[in-house]
Amino acid sequence: MANFELISRLANDSGGKIILLVMDGLGGLPRTADGLTELETAHTPNMDALAKAGSTGLTIPVARGVAPGSGPAHLALFGYDPIQYEIGRGVLEATGIGIEVLPGDVAIRGNFCTVDANGLITDRRAGRIPTEEGAKRVELLKQIKLPGVETIVEAVQDYRFAVLLRGSGLNGDIADTDPQATGVPTLPAVAQSPAAEHTAKLVNQWLAEAAKILKGHEPANMVTLRGFAMEPGLPKYSEVYKLKAACVAVYPMYKGVSRLVGMDVIPTDIHDHPADEFKRVAGIWNDYDFVFCHIKYTDSRGEDGDFDAKVKVIEEVDAALPILLDLKPDVLVITGDHSTPATYKAHSWHPVPTLLYAPKTHMPDRAQAYGERECMGGALGQFPAAELMPLALGHANRLAKYGA
Amino acid sequence: MANFELISRLANDSGGKIILLVMDGLGGLPRTADGLTELETAHTPNMDALAKAGSTGLTIPVARGVAPGSGPAHLALFGYDPIQYEIGRGVLEATGIGIEVLPGDVAIRGNFCTVDANGLITDRRAGRIPTEEGAKRVELLKQIKLPGVETIVEAVQDYRFAVLLRGSGLNGDIADTDPQATGVPTLPAVAQSPAAEHTAKLVNQWLAEAAKILKGHEPANMVTLRGFAMEPGLPKYSEVYKLKAACVAVYPMYKGVSRLVGMDVIPTDIHDHPADEFKRVAGIWNDYDFVFCHIKYTDSRGEDGDFDAKVKVIEEVDAALPILLDLKPDVLVITGDHSTPATYKAHSWHPVPTLLYAPKTHMPDRAQAYGERECMGGALGQFPAAELMPLALGHANRLAKYGA
Repeated sequence: MANFELISRLANDSGGKIILLVMDGLGGLPRTADGLTELETAHTPNMDALAKAGSTGLTIPVARGVAPGSGPAHLALFGYDPIQYEIGRGVLEATGIGIEVLPGDVAIRGNFCTVDANGLITDRRAGRIPTEEGAKRVELLKQIKLPGVETIVEAVQDYRFAVLLRGSGLNGDIADTDPQATGVPTLPAVAQSPAAEHTAKLVNQWLAEAAKILKGHEPANMVTLRGFAMEPGLPKYSEVYKLKAACVAVYPMYKGVSRLVGMDVIPTDIHDHPADEFKRVAGIWNDYDFVFCHIKYTDSRGEDGDFDAKVKVIEEVDAALPILLDLKPDVLVITGDHSTPATYKAHSWHPVPTLLYAPKTHMPDRAQAYGERECMGGALGQFPAAELMPLALGHANRLAKYGA
Repeated sequence: MANFELISRLANDSGGKIILLVMDGLGGLPRTADGLTELETAHTPNMDALAKAGSTGLTIPVARGVAPGSGPAHLALFGYDPIQYEIGRGVLEATGIGIEVLPGDVAIRGNFCTVDANGLITDRRAGRIPTEEGAKRVELLKQIKLPGVETIVEAVQDYRFAVLLRGSGLNGDIADTDPQATGVPTLPAVAQSPAAEHTAKLVNQWLAEAAKILKGHEPANMVTLRGFAMEPGLPKYSEVYKLKAACVAVYPMYKGVSRLVGMDVIPTDIHDHPADEFKRVAGIWNDYDFVFCHIKYTDSRGEDGDFDAKVKVIEEVDAALPILLDLKPDVLVITGDHSTPATYKAHSWHPVPTLLYAPKTHMPDRAQAYGERECMGGALGQFPAAELMPLALGHANRLAKYGA
């Protein structure tokens, strides 16, 4: 995106402070033909007041008609063209649990599985063993050494773990070893291009060792590897936006993406409620120019198809919002990364209601509340999510004038 | 911009006639949270009637969040991607005072300054000497000859002048000689790339002569040179749009940009009021397909932070508008090049209210008046300013159908 280069050229390190509050999967659909969406149903006096005072619009995460995953949807919110910049799943998994992924590393997602005496898969998720059982076996896997390559293995959750290979000449262009079926053996690592053949050989060596070590540790007596990926080399927030940025999120993946763009990831507890997260934002507010705060459970309840529960999460966020408002950010953006309508039970492509509150610089529009239909006639129009960061920077007086 | 090539391929030399009326820095912000903008405040019965009858929308000059200078903002209005096409300051200054800049020329902005006996700058603007004092010294500078290169020097205003070098092998990739400080000597011309070394040498020769000639002519006894730039090689209106186009503007810079895109620049008086400018449009109307008419003082009053004075300029334009309406243009576009909210006292990034009146072809929308909020729900939506020319051409029946 040409604009991205322009913005990084114009960005300066003075100006106002910004909060980007993202309710995952915020956008919704009405339950009945003439009904209201989740956001329109929710009692949200605080967000309504912000929408009434400030600017509203709708963001398109990746492209019209395209439902995005959380990775590209967040890259877009962070200002990166989500088609140009891609983050592999392995990298998301690794960074999400705090493994630092450096340029040249190959990161991989691992699953424990169950194989029978003939090596045929009987359970692709090893009976969904609990996290502590997975962790015990990860300790065994840590013993595996590869020639000339550092190997990092860490438990993620339940039957999932992450592997990172560090060394020279590595390449992540390797197909998944999970055959996505039972009654068949796990697949060997197969290079998808000549440059990855050396790495595939090393991975197969590691898999052979893993099979030996895990023998007898039923139900998790074998592994599959997926999502081979390399560090994507994303330009960092401090370089492109001249922002000292922090992330407050409870879920690993969002921490992972934030770390890849150079945000400091603030420690949180997986059980944090919105108010807890907002208090963490308050706790670090003096140290940062920009804080990204992520609320997970709007998306989860949307995927559950639980309209009322999604409404409740939105209301909980609204009730806690004064904690953020008391910080008096120069720019407060509230949006979602994509829509997850409870009626659809999945991520969707519908544009996401977005509000921008910047009392010194925003253009008030005619929206009277924060909701999909109110945002349709707003001052920001309907626009690519990747242009939200420039808007926030502009409203914070952090972009120089372009040309004379 | 890919569209630009498409439009130039489709443009034909028949069809209707177009007026593009630009009020510089037109867009504004409300003075109070629930108040009106400058344009909304102004009593504009003529423009309101056009907005009610025709199509409205909001234009984005360069990119969301980016406040543009006048050069890129006008290039965009003229249909050129303002990121792809850049005009250097020296070229803007030279063309603005009527110096023709040809391909291969290097154009430079000059400032008179004051230096002490040791050559250290004591005043970067030479006490802001009046234009006639500057002009006297420019006559002296005209005597300087360079080997194999034609040198044109002209006074601009106050302590400012323009220099143009014409000859083969010239290159404008040279850093400013203004150190942006006092108590230090002026800088020599330094080439920023090997191709510019020959030119830098010639410029230093010129600077040495200038120092000699200006000695004793305090307070303007030395010069600095800035904004070295070459003719940008913009495609011309006659080629890309098949339009015979004219510019009616009172300020040099706007004349300059218009000349660079191939418009004929109509003589005006710096003291022209909107009605005077509109009469000049009427005077040449039979000779052109397209007239760009530029009103400067909306921007000036916005930069002054004088909300009421900006309102008055808009009202003056509206009162004079019947002069243009009497010409019965097939398409009349009224817009700004960017926003200059009086509350912000500077160019801003806010989208610009735009109206398109083409009684035979426009789509009436629900706007009841010409103003920011009315334009938000308009038929044209929110769109890049560089797409305004295609819209005008289309409404004038000057674009062939694309494909069969």
